[in-house]
Amino acid sequence: MNSTMALRIAVFGENRHEKVDQRVQEIYPDGMHTVIAEGLRTLLAADGVEAEVRIALLDDIEESLSEEALAETDVLTWWGHMAHEDVPDHIVERVVRRVHEGMGLVPLHSAHYSKPFKALMGTTCNLLWRNDGEEERVWTVSGSHPIARGVPHPIVVPEQEMYGEMFDIPAPDELVFISSFAGGEVFRSGAVFRRGKGKVFYFSPGDQEYPVYRQADIQRVLANAVTWARPEDRPAAPVTITNAQRDWFRADDPEGATRVI
Amino acid sequence: MNSTMALRIAVFGENRHEKVDQRVQEIYPDGMHTVIAEGLRTLLAADGVEAEVRIALLDDIEESLSEEALAETDVLTWWGHMAHEDVPDHIVERVVRRVHEGMGLVPLHSAHYSKPFKALMGTTCNLLWRNDGEEERVWTVSGSHPIARGVPHPIVVPEQEMYGEMFDIPAPDELVFISSFAGGEVFRSGAVFRRGKGKVFYFSPGDQEYPVYRQADIQRVLANAVTWARPEDRPAAPVTITNAQRDWFRADDPEGATRVI
Amino acid sequence: MNSTMALRIAVFGENRHEKVDQRVQEIYPDGMHTVIAEGLRTLLAADGVEAEVRIALLDDIEESLSEEALAETDVLTWWGHMAHEDVPDHIVERVVRRVHEGMGLVPLHSAHYSKPFKALMGTTCNLLWRNDGEEERVWTVSGSHPIARGVPHPIVVPEQEMYGEMFDIPAPDELVFISSFAGGEVFRSGAVFRRGKGKVFYFSPGDQEYPVYRQADIQRVLANAVTWARPEDRPAAPVTITNAQRDWFRADDPEGATRVI
Amino acid sequence: MNSTMALRIAVFGENRHEKVDQRVQEIYPDGMHTVIAEGLRTLLAADGVEAEVRIALLDDIEESLSEEALAETDVLTWWGHMAHEDVPDHIVERVVRRVHEGMGLVPLHSAHYSKPFKALMGTTCNLLWRNDGEEERVWTVSGSHPIARGVPHPIVVPEQEMYGEMFDIPAPDELVFISSFAGGEVFRSGAVFRRGKGKVFYFSPGDQEYPVYRQADIQRVLANAVTWARPEDRPAAPVTITNAQRDWFRADDPEGATRVI
Repeated sequence: MNSTMALRIAVFGENRHEKVDQRVQEIYPDGMHTVIAEGLRTLLAADGVEAEVRIALLDDIEESLSEEALAETDVLTWWGHMAHEDVPDHIVERVVRRVHEGMGLVPLHSAHYSKPFKALMGTTCNLLWRNDGEEERVWTVSGSHPIARGVPHPIVVPEQEMYGEMFDIPAPDELVFISSFAGGEVFRSGAVFRRGKGKVFYFSPGDQEYPVYRQADIQRVLANAVTWARPEDRPAAPVTITNAQRDWFRADDPEGATRVI
Repeated sequence: MNSTMALRIAVFGENRHEKVDQRVQEIYPDGMHTVIAEGLRTLLAADGVEAEVRIALLDDIEESLSEEALAETDVLTWWGHMAHEDVPDHIVERVVRRVHEGMGLVPLHSAHYSKPFKALMGTTCNLLWRNDGEEERVWTVSGSHPIARGVPHPIVVPEQEMYGEMFDIPAPDELVFISSFAGGEVFRSGAVFRRGKGKVFYFSPGDQEYPVYRQADIQRVLANAVTWARPEDRPAAPVTITNAQRDWFRADDPEGATRVI
Repeated sequence: MNSTMALRIAVFGENRHEKVDQRVQEIYPDGMHTVIAEGLRTLLAADGVEAEVRIALLDDIEESLSEEALAETDVLTWWGHMAHEDVPDHIVERVVRRVHEGMGLVPLHSAHYSKPFKALMGTTCNLLWRNDGEEERVWTVSGSHPIARGVPHPIVVPEQEMYGEMFDIPAPDELVFISSFAGGEVFRSGAVFRRGKGKVFYFSPGDQEYPVYRQADIQRVLANAVTWARPEDRPAAPVTITNAQRDWFRADDPEGATRVI
Repeated sequence: MNSTMALRIAVFGENRHEKVDQRVQEIYPDGMHTVIAEGLRTLLAADGVEAEVRIALLDDIEESLSEEALAETDVLTWWGHMAHEDVPDHIVERVVRRVHEGMGLVPLHSAHYSKPFKALMGTTCNLLWRNDGEEERVWTVSGSHPIARGVPHPIVVPEQEMYGEMFDIPAPDELVFISSFAGGEVFRSGAVFRRGKGKVFYFSPGDQEYPVYRQADIQRVLANAVTWARPEDRPAAPVTITNAQRDWFRADDPEGATRVI
């Protein structure tokens, strides 16, 4: 995309724990999605990145992630946990196709188990976990990565659910963060995957029972991530299967040379 | 697996073109699967690798890729083209799960579009193609890879269908071969992917209309690939999702320390 | 670096063939470096990227790549061939250190054999070659990479020196382009490597005997590459070796949490 | 190499701390190298791998790592710390060249700073450290890797020197282990790098002040590593730079097709 155009972000929130779990209501009275969206707005403005941040909820998913809505979404962040199964398969296919077309996807925390992420990974995405309010330290392991820009080394999250290895994902294309927990486990907590023309960044800090998304350094990572994940300036279509005649790429038709990608 | 145990290989063949296409019948009167299996038997014996090679056909897929049959399969090679859709989804899920458990998978040529490969990749697996009987040269680009052992640089396939980039796959964990074609296209023709506890090697030479699988160097690559793809000596189960108590890995129970992987 | 600051680029040219080889003089009467620099100025301006492009020649290398000059260089492009040995080792060490600190490096064509590139790779960087004026086709193999933005698939270079595999480099962190040549060879012609805090993009099209750097699509790749390779907003120092006391990252001193990277 | 030939291993030991440091003398009265070598002999015999394990010391480095000695070495393990500078540069070049030719290299612990490893990486290899006798837990993160075969998840080292991120290495070709320490740091403690025709496995557990190499699980990793790192069956020469005539690979001369790799 043209870097002078506004970055169009959709913050998908399952918004279920917020309705049924008092502890979550106290931490996030307006939902996690509200805090995530507000953090993005504030930090992207500070970065000088023109951005439009909208919220997409499971309750209105047919509209908020409709074909038309996704066609105008550059980056989609995704938080889900207890209601992964309530996301209709046709919407999962749509989200996956949009990633193939170039849309960025930022699955958060328990979205390791969301349908779109699992479909894009091809693995079980299983892991080890324990909800015991442990300190998490998020260490940067890529010295040149834009997603780690401006965050301390490590980011310390005072209380968190533990996610631990073995995390059953493909080897990330780039590993940005590794976390350790007070109990001793480690986790590949920030991982880049490229799929088709789209970029995926999985980021694990952020359980609903702790105010992780209120933490400035975590918001910094999310702002970096959506900026990084924005589509490049390419046609928004998946790579196609094409029967190409000999010498097609030397044809006079200027379309000839650019039809594939 | 213990390297002293026999390597149990299943050669899956769609066996459709062989029934309906005279040209294919002439090249492969007993089916491509027969030539592939025989090449594996001969070369693995020459390598001193004890192996059992069986054939699994689409016509008997409920038996040949049954739960029991796959449980006793170390590496599965897969050739399919015109009948991808005839592979039942429950068998696709079974094959994918077995890869997660450790089974090796070697998708061949048009199996870039087979259901198991697409499910493991998470991309469209689209590509460029042209059936024009062109010379293909298969170049080794990994100087230390066992799958390229003993093959000339390049392997020259006199006549082949062209497969060209963009090939819409995730970046391979290891890129072993790149092909060029007489028409000028290139293709990542030998690519390694690790998924769960299993290893996947996609190898593109081998269209049904040319006697590619009768070529000694191609048979050499297949024999190298199945040897490389055999499961490591691990429990045959996917990585599990586990709720782990604090200090579980310091517990006296010797099972404690090994329960995850 | 702050994306609102000017991108400071140095175009290093060996400028030897231009002095002694009539054919090169005819193609590049003011040197290859001049054409490369002018292409960058024009295209970055068109992209809206504020940039300062200076030329650094081997003849004035003590000044043009002095400590002070490199400290104010964000990205260094490097063309060398017949005089690799004339680059003093202390300047090689300086360039390598600056890459570790975050400076981008874009080695071009025969700079696969330049001292800084070899030092950063740790391999022989050997390859196959033939100067026979062959058509080269540069294929994009990464659907989401910014360096391939806006170029046709493939870029066709009408006449070029052939560079072929095996190219003895580490597996690239990201493979962006693969070339084929009329003679049948292939080459990983666009490859990303991250070293320390710096980014390296090797790009092979560009022999001195053909007007490759006058080609618009090649200039597009170079402009994309220097934009991509610019340093992130980090302290310009290599990762340090540090003896850290327990709990250092929980210390009150705000410097504590950020001293490592 | 032919898997039926004996695996020829050299265990390089600096053997300096053992002479001057009483604590090290008590843990390793015959030197770390002796314990490492004995562990390899025992476990490889149990694995049914025919192996010859010799010791190479800094004191006799001109003989033990002579051209002739290295020519008959398949895998070299390397432990060094206080005397990195005493390794002559011509021997460093020899070791690096042998890796390019196919020899395996297994740098251990403080050998992250050894000359051969740094030359092969192209980075500073800096890291964070603290010698405070902390528990280290070594977690497997690659579900299919042979180097992790048969070890618990995690391996617990009761007391160790801490090595922490940022570890300034290139992104590993395969990441096998990540460690956490009691103090909270993490480290990429088991990492695969391919260079030329050779394989490198860096493994960090093993400080001289703790009996780490006496631990069965650590010995298991080392035995797995040397088996994995053995050369493939290829000519023992680096990839060469070659001027190739058109159609060289179609020449009748059977040498033609195999001269490059």
